[in-house]
Parts: sequence; C-alpha cells; structure tokens
Amino acid sequence: MKDTTTIPYKIYLEENEMPKSWYNLRADMKNKPAPLMHPGTHEAMTAADLAPVFCEELVQQELDDTTPLIEIPQEIRDFYKMYRPSPLVRAYCLEEKLQTPAKIYYKFEGNNTSGSHKLNSAIAQAYYAKKQGLKGVTTETGAGQWGTALSMACSYFGLDCKVFMVKVSYEQKPFRREVMRTYGASVTPSPSMETAIGRKILAEHPGTTGSLGCAISEAVEVATSTPGYRYVLGSVLNQVLLHQSVIGLETKAALDKYGIKPDMIIGCAGGGSNLGGLIAPFMGEKLRGEADYQIIAVEPASCPSFTRGTFAYDFCDTGMVCPLAKMYTLGSGFIPAPNHAGGLRYHGMSTTLSQLYHDGLMEARAVKQTDVFEAAEQFARVEGILPAPESAHAIKVAIDEALKCKETGEEKTIVFGLTGTGYFDLVAYQKFHDGLMDDYIPTDEELQASFAKLPKVE
Amino acid sequence: MKDTTTIPYKIYLEENEMPKSWYNLRADMKNKPAPLMHPGTHEAMTAADLAPVFCEELVQQELDDTTPLIEIPQEIRDFYKMYRPSPLVRAYCLEEKLQTPAKIYYKFEGNNTSGSHKLNSAIAQAYYAKKQGLKGVTTETGAGQWGTALSMACSYFGLDCKVFMVKVSYEQKPFRREVMRTYGASVTPSPSMETAIGRKILAEHPGTTGSLGCAISEAVEVATSTPGYRYVLGSVLNQVLLHQSVIGLETKAALDKYGIKPDMIIGCAGGGSNLGGLIAPFMGEKLRGEADYQIIAVEPASCPSFTRGTFAYDFCDTGMVCPLAKMYTLGSGFIPAPNHAGGLRYHGMSTTLSQLYHDGLMEARAVKQTDVFEAAEQFARVEGILPAPESAHAIKVAIDEALKCKETGEEKTIVFGLTGTGYFDLVAYQKFHDGLMDDYIPTDEELQASFAKLPKVE
Repeated sequence: MKDTTTIPYKIYLEENEMPKSWYNLRADMKNKPAPLMHPGTHEAMTAADLAPVFCEELVQQELDDTTPLIEIPQEIRDFYKMYRPSPLVRAYCLEEKLQTPAKIYYKFEGNNTSGSHKLNSAIAQAYYAKKQGLKGVTTETGAGQWGTALSMACSYFGLDCKVFMVKVSYEQKPFRREVMRTYGASVTPSPSMETAIGRKILAEHPGTTGSLGCAISEAVEVATSTPGYRYVLGSVLNQVLLHQSVIGLETKAALDKYGIKPDMIIGCAGGGSNLGGLIAPFMGEKLRGEADYQIIAVEPASCPSFTRGTFAYDFCDTGMVCPLAKMYTLGSGFIPAPNHAGGLRYHGMSTTLSQLYHDGLMEARAVKQTDVFEAAEQFARVEGILPAPESAHAIKVAIDEALKCKETGEEKTIVFGLTGTGYFDLVAYQKFHDGLMDDYIPTDEELQASFAKLPKVE
Repeated sequence: MKDTTTIPYKIYLEENEMPKSWYNLRADMKNKPAPLMHPGTHEAMTAADLAPVFCEELVQQELDDTTPLIEIPQEIRDFYKMYRPSPLVRAYCLEEKLQTPAKIYYKFEGNNTSGSHKLNSAIAQAYYAKKQGLKGVTTETGAGQWGTALSMACSYFGLDCKVFMVKVSYEQKPFRREVMRTYGASVTPSPSMETAIGRKILAEHPGTTGSLGCAISEAVEVATSTPGYRYVLGSVLNQVLLHQSVIGLETKAALDKYGIKPDMIIGCAGGGSNLGGLIAPFMGEKLRGEADYQIIAVEPASCPSFTRGTFAYDFCDTGMVCPLAKMYTLGSGFIPAPNHAGGLRYHGMSTTLSQLYHDGLMEARAVKQTDVFEAAEQFARVEGILPAPESAHAIKVAIDEALKCKETGEEKTIVFGLTGTGYFDLVAYQKFHDGLMDDYIPTDEELQASFAKLPKVE
C-alpha cells in the first residue's frame, strides 16, 4: 500500500478558498469559438437576437469572449456553500486494486440531490433570472438530471420552474420527476397539448413518446410566448461552461495546496459542460504557455461527436428552431440507439471545446458501453461510489491510462471528473448485470447520411 | 441573514482528527442495560451461546459493558476515510427560512452509496468476519439500506455476502437490489426454498410476500448451518451502537473545534443505531456529570416503542428465534400499518437506549407520518438535500424546537442527525405529493393485545 498520510483521501478546500470568480476560457483562446448563427439569415447572433430567449446577463456571458474572470455573485457563492467545495479524492483504493504506480485523483460532483455537476450552472441561471425580475424559467430534460438541478435552484430563489420532460422518461423514470415535484417544479410530459408545436406533433404522431428536440421546442415556445419567462439550458452553451469552471478552479486550488501537478486530465463529454468546466484553468495555462497537460475527452462509441463527427455549422436542437453553432457534430438528426444507457446522447458539442479540439489542444477517445459499465462496477467496488454511467466514461479511460503506467512504470498523475452518482440509473445497471446490454456503434454509412443533411452555410 | 463567516456552512474534520477509538457508552452507565437472555433457559447469554451466530470479536463487543474506548482497527479507519469524516452542517438556510434565533446543525451521514450511516457498522462487522477467517456473512434486509451497506463492506474485504430480502421489497424495490448486485452480493427473496424455515413458511402460506422476522430466521439458519459463515445485524445490538459512536465523536470534535456547546441533540430512532451513535459522547458527559444536554429520540407515531411501549423482556425478532432483550417494545408481533413509509418499523429498541430512557436521561417524541414528509420537503427546498423519511423524523422535531425558540427568543443550539438520503424512497414521496398518505396510529387496544403476548419472564 502506498503512503496515505501525506496526501489525504479527500482534499477539501476551506470555504474562504472557494473561487470568487468564474474563469472564461475563451478570453485566452487565440482562435475564438465561432459565433452562434441565425438559422434564417446566417448572420452572427446578437444580444438583441438572444434576449427574447435568454436572460440578459446570461446573454452577455454567452457573447463575452474577452473577459477572463467574471465575479460570482455573493448569492450564488452562498448557495455553492450548501454543497461545495466538492471533494478532490485520491483514489488510493483503486490504485491499490490496479497495482499501478499512477496517482489517480477524481473531482466528485455527485454529493448533492441533483446528483451531478448540473447544479453549478442551474443556480447561476436561476439567480440571473431572479435578478432580472422574471417570474420563471422553462427548460427541457431527458433523463431528468438537469431538470432536477434547475428545480432545486428555482425553489431556492422562489422562481417558477416549468420542465418539459421527454414523455418516455416521464413515464419510465418517475423518481426523478418526483424529486422535481418535491422542489415545486411543474413537470409536463412532452409532447404536450400546452404548446402549438406539441399539439402539431401529437396530431401528426399520436403515439409518439417524445424526443429531446421536441421538448426543447416546447420549452422555448412557452418561454418566448409567456411574459416574465425565459428559457434556460444545461449544457453546450458558453455560459454553462463558464459556470462550470468552478469545478476546474476548485480542482486546481486543491492540487496546488499539496503542490501536485497533474499529467493528464480526463472528462466525459456529452454537450461538454462538465469537461469544459473541469479543464478550464488547466487549458488556460496551456493556452498561455505556462504549463502543459494531456487533456482527454471521453465520449460513447455510440455517439462519437469528436472522434467521428464533422466540424461544421449545425442546429443545436433536433427540432431545428435554435441557432446554428459551429461544432463537432453527428448531424442534428442523429439519434443514438435507444439501448444506449450512458447519457451523453447529444449530437453536437460545445463550440469552445470543438475549437480547442480542432486546434489540437486536446484529444478524444470513444469507449464502448459495456466497457464503461465494467469500469463503473470496478470503481464502485473499491471506491464506494456508484457512478453515473456518464461519469463512468471518464473512469474507463482513467483506468486504461493507469494500467498503461503499470506497464511502463511511469508514476503519472491522473485527474478525472466524476460528474455524478448512478442512483437513478439502476435500470441500466440491471441490464448490464443481466447481460442485456449491447454495444451499438453507428456505421460510416449512417453518419454520412446524417452529415448530408447538415445545413448549407457559406 | 445571520453572520455566516465565523462558522462555516460545513465543518469537516481533518483526517488526522477522525476518531481512533469507538466510545462504549455502557462503560459510563451506572444502571447497565440488562443482558440478552436465552429464550429457552432464561439465563443471560454467554459468549459461548452467541459464538455460533456472531463473529468472536463482535461477541466480545456485544458483552463488554466496562471498557470505555475500543480502538478502531487501522483497516476500518482506512475505509472510513473513503466516505468520512461526514460533514457537520450549519443549517443557515433553514434558520433563515424559519426566521429563528436558534442555531441548527446537522450531522449528515448520507454521502455514501449505501445512502446512510449503516455503513459505519457494516464495515466493522465485515472486518471482524474477515479477521476471523470466515468465508462470508448472512443478513436480512427490508427496504435494502442495511443490505446495501453490508454488500459494500463485504466487497471491500472480499467476503461473500448473502442477503435475504423481504420478498415484497425484492419485487417492489429492484433498485436497491441492483446496487447490492453491483457490489457482488447474492440477494434472495424471502421466504425462499433455500432454508428449512423458508420452505415451511412457503408450505403454510404459499402466497406470502415475506416479513423481516422471516428473513432474519432464514439468514440465521444459513449462517449457523454453513461452515465459515456468521450472521450480522445492522441495528439494535450493543456492538452496532458502539460502531455508530463514530457519528457522535465526529460531531463533538467538530463542535469543539469552534467552541460550540449544543443545548439539545435530536435523532430518529428505529432500532436505535443512529441515535445511540450520535448521542454517545454527549450522553457520556451527562452520565459523568460533566455537562448537561437535552436529548430527544424521535419515533413514528405508527410505531411508538418509547412513547407507548412497555419496558420488558421481549423477542428481538418476530420469528421468536433470537434471544430476549429487555427493552421498550410494542411486542414482537406488532407490525406497523403497511402504509407506513418512513422506516423505523422495528417493534423494539436498543437495550442501552431503553435503559437510558427508563432512567430519565433522555426524552422521546412520536410524530405523524404526513408531518414528517412536510418537514422533509421544507428541509429539501432550503438545504438542498432530499432526506430519507427516517431522517426526516429528526428534522420535524428540530424544526418544532427552532420555532419554539422563535417564540421565546432563545438562541438555543440544536444538533440533529441526518442519517441518510431519500433517493430510494421516492414512491413514498410520490404518495405524499398525491395526497395518498395517511396517519395510522395504533389504538390502545391493539397495543394491549400485543403486550399480552410478551414472553413470561420471572
């Protein structure tokens, strides 16, 4: 067993060591992420274009690619203190199990009732909505993690919270729905009769169980047609990555406290909110030439935006009502196989991360579903935390890298993001235990057909 | 808003401040808890009587009422570091919501995958089984919290873990079962065909959905008839209270760090493991005349062992195969109404706590189910943690006491135990939201009928 006395199992910052500002990675990028584009005019979206949909200050944050530090308002910092600082954990037991000379750390974001890092941005978005004097916000949720986080944040600030939940999840995952109800949110199965788009879809497809694209469209319609409401989103956007930088800033502060310099940083990537937040200060040092890190995005082989997608302007939603974003995408019509259990189902990727990947500043790996669940179980058994399937993508690659160190004898320091817990994903674990999970991987033909439908942009 | 800068939201001990010994409250009791009694001979149970059922060192701990401090083995302390120290949280947001001058703290034991404090004793019991060279352990579980904790502990030490899960829970709560499977435990619905008692019960009641009493009997039968196996139990026993003293010791150390002296300590009580652990060092000071605290046990009005039970020798299990214990009991045949959702369904109470209560050293309150869920929801909305229904019993009384302070203007310091999270209790929350929960309270006649069946002991 390695010495466990110098570095504790869990590094907690003191409250006065918690970040007072978010870090806006874009400010240090030489090649800025391409702007959002109006789907009709193909002009860059302005603050005025975005204002009917998003809160004013969030629009500013979305468009600001020059200010490196943006102060975290005191009210948000107070809320953060309810569940942050999150621990940076030294995975001594995993290291022992793997018999690796590597040193493995993970930043654990799951110790809050939303079960994930999503709360970091939910509270920020709710705060700015409240500050603007709004009555409420709308959003969509698939599995329910983001909806839960937002309902907690809205409850705290006394904001109305209207969640459109994909009908199949609404029916099959009643527990997340119940958590949202506990926090006073109204949860509507989508498609619904409450919106024009919902009624249209129901008329055309009476038996549909819904989709995220449809839920987004309904949430946007209600936000833009109801006075005092705006729409909020839990991933992909620049503003979300900004709020999530609190993950990376805390991680870096905890490492610095013990003089630890990581060799590699690993995070799972769906829309990119966790990865973008985790790597922010490290990537900043890399961009400024102050340090170098190997940075690895991990995505499911069934939804491989980075590793098999194309870098192009595409719709952010499958309903094609939202702006176009330049990103690595599988095409907004791409839908991963229904058997895919591990989250991270988004067809595109944050524009910021897409640009960084395009510029060779980070790498990406695609991993198979069953391998991910095997890694999840191995991790749970020694580290005592049942991980969310999303988080387990990062675990899988961290284990792979630690085993490489075992072969080479290198004592690399590996940091990965453990975004959340799997308490609401046990149907997927059950499938895995029962041998009913398979490894769908899209064919090249499927992807080419999807790319062919990308919007034509000069 | 009160000053939140002097006392942090969350007080974490450093790893080197964590307890190195458990505290054995019985050593400081003038009136010792009455010994376990053999159900046939009515003689006090000896180590030799208990050895076929329990691990050797646990038998010693069970019987030892004189040694105040028992060292926590290094291997257990290492495991504790995976999920401990648990935070002592200052409930600033709840205080603000209630507008109370009271200062409210809670010790939160839910930040681990078992979701509760049960892991504190599970790891200790698994360790001693391993040390004795055993192959495995058996146990029963109702809702699955204890079974989950034990499966995590056994997985860590490479012990076989056989859990008999009450059939109705096995079928209706597949998620807890799945967590246990993730940790490699075998989970058998009880009654089963694997044991003589199970086959007998199934022959007599073919359609039965099982009971905790039956599951205990099956687990004990397998443990005592399989070489290399012993039986372990998650509450009620002295050894369990001993292990759970880590909760109180950490709480006291965290308070001492900031010079805080609580006025009252509140905990929920089913079998008494959490309450006994939380209050241990405080009760110790009280017994030694060094300090005084108001100590309150909170139990469900539907299963009111302290407030309406009788202090007598009774069977520990409904199957009447286990030893007799002198305790506050509703009668081993008493079964709370099936609609009772909030855990804490045990008919009896720890002998140690029973003696302390009998001697007037602590008080007890019984609270109604719907009031408990109301308090749970109020707490979740401001403190961000969805509590287990069990824990919410303590929340309810903490809120009551804080509101009394609001009336009187007293700035009392209230500490309560938040034993776990409610992620696997959402069916109960749903009932509450849908107005389908009612408040069963046993009649005096029911209780008298149950008392009439107590074993006759001279």
